[in-house]
Amino acid sequence: MKISLIGSGNVAWHLAPALEDVGHQIVEVYSRNKKNAQKIAQKLYDAKINIDLDFDDSVAQLFILAIADDAIEEVIKQIILPENCLLVHTSGSKSLEWFDNLVKIHHDLPIKTGVFYPLMTFSKTKIIDFKNVPFCIEAIEETSKKNLVKIAQQLSKIVYSVSSEERKTLHLSAVFACNFTNHLLALSQKILEEKGLGFELLKPLIEETITKALLAKHPADVQTGPAIRGDESTIKQHLSQLKGSPDLQKVYKTMTESIQNID
Amino acid sequence: MKISLIGSGNVAWHLAPALEDVGHQIVEVYSRNKKNAQKIAQKLYDAKINIDLDFDDSVAQLFILAIADDAIEEVIKQIILPENCLLVHTSGSKSLEWFDNLVKIHHDLPIKTGVFYPLMTFSKTKIIDFKNVPFCIEAIEETSKKNLVKIAQQLSKIVYSVSSEERKTLHLSAVFACNFTNHLLALSQKILEEKGLGFELLKPLIEETITKALLAKHPADVQTGPAIRGDESTIKQHLSQLKGSPDLQKVYKTMTESIQNID
Repeated sequence: MKISLIGSGNVAWHLAPALEDVGHQIVEVYSRNKKNAQKIAQKLYDAKINIDLDFDDSVAQLFILAIADDAIEEVIKQIILPENCLLVHTSGSKSLEWFDNLVKIHHDLPIKTGVFYPLMTFSKTKIIDFKNVPFCIEAIEETSKKNLVKIAQQLSKIVYSVSSEERKTLHLSAVFACNFTNHLLALSQKILEEKGLGFELLKPLIEETITKALLAKHPADVQTGPAIRGDESTIKQHLSQLKGSPDLQKVYKTMTESIQNID
Repeated sequence: MKISLIGSGNVAWHLAPALEDVGHQIVEVYSRNKKNAQKIAQKLYDAKINIDLDFDDSVAQLFILAIADDAIEEVIKQIILPENCLLVHTSGSKSLEWFDNLVKIHHDLPIKTGVFYPLMTFSKTKIIDFKNVPFCIEAIEETSKKNLVKIAQQLSKIVYSVSSEERKTLHLSAVFACNFTNHLLALSQKILEEKGLGFELLKPLIEETITKALLAKHPADVQTGPAIRGDESTIKQHLSQLKGSPDLQKVYKTMTESIQNID
């Protein structure tokens, strides 16, 4: 299939060459920033750079929006699309209904809409094996949905048909499990670094923690540490160790209370 | 070496057979609860059960306290030990100085003291490969330290000589990286479960998050998500999704602010 990619962030960076690897052709890459579009185009077979969102003459049948959630509305307003193309976004939190309405408001030509959401964390410098990336698919029309599922199945062995409501829940839970978890590791390293200790020391523990949590029926069943034991003297000592860092103290208190209150 | 184990919790459960596997003999296992002591003794070659803390006639040279931090003081008061034995605790947060003073106050006979702290999370149902468990060793006397390092090296390839101050920092950072992280996964599962979604869906993302964080020089360098992007409309939507759960909202707000404030 001929595909245009709107965006040059982390998702676009990995998704574009992965789509070509399974036999599709990226015909255009759009970015406000020409250099960013060029960087992705260099990894592709024969993609043109687009910097004005005018795709009137495009031969693409599928347009993938891989941009920040906050930018979707503005791009929909500006983009010029060929008739009957399929336009999808890659966001975890934007409903298909909202997206489809937005397209209808700003476009007179018939345009099909859908969602092509990879439930994964992407960074430019880290290679991703798409085979293990869960894709959450949604579309207004059944044919669009079938096509999106087919493309997702070429990329990955984990493809789900997921409603907007379910996708929102998945995205929210991913913020806890992924974004917040990464931040805890960052705070943990900060605590060590301030005392001249290396993060290496904690790595076996972190790996074991995750392995254990993912093997358990419920991660709550394998909770350990002073909060769950109700070990108040250790909690008090930890808060005093953090007395120079009100932000870390607040995270410590909030997480400890939450562990003690979970039902 | 002949060793007595005081305690029947998760650490004792795994440490006792591991010590026998590398050639030591556990001669006694103490627990207030006889059944718990028996359960561990059943996994050992020829360990006696002790329920009164009287080790006057013990042939053990090393006594390992694997009990809750809050219980250490009471056990030191009650325990009767043979002269010149080495008594160690396995706690991350109790200083050797505090421990040694406590022993001196309550015991007239000369008793050597040390710390034998495995930087790991233990649950009874999950097998542990001790080869990858970092051990943090400390002792008042050089000979005791050498002996403890030797035993730790038989169990593990990661053995450190660590001061009480450093151990406290390691333990605090482990609470963030391990206990709090596990709790985030528990919350994440709770969010999914309430909407009838399976935790399986998030597992590839969680695995990738941890792999990426541990490969990065600093986990903060690979932070992703609405908080770090300053994506206020998604943050607002997430908080509204959580409006029935004040505890989850509090965790969300605290973590988001902390991500946005980290220097």
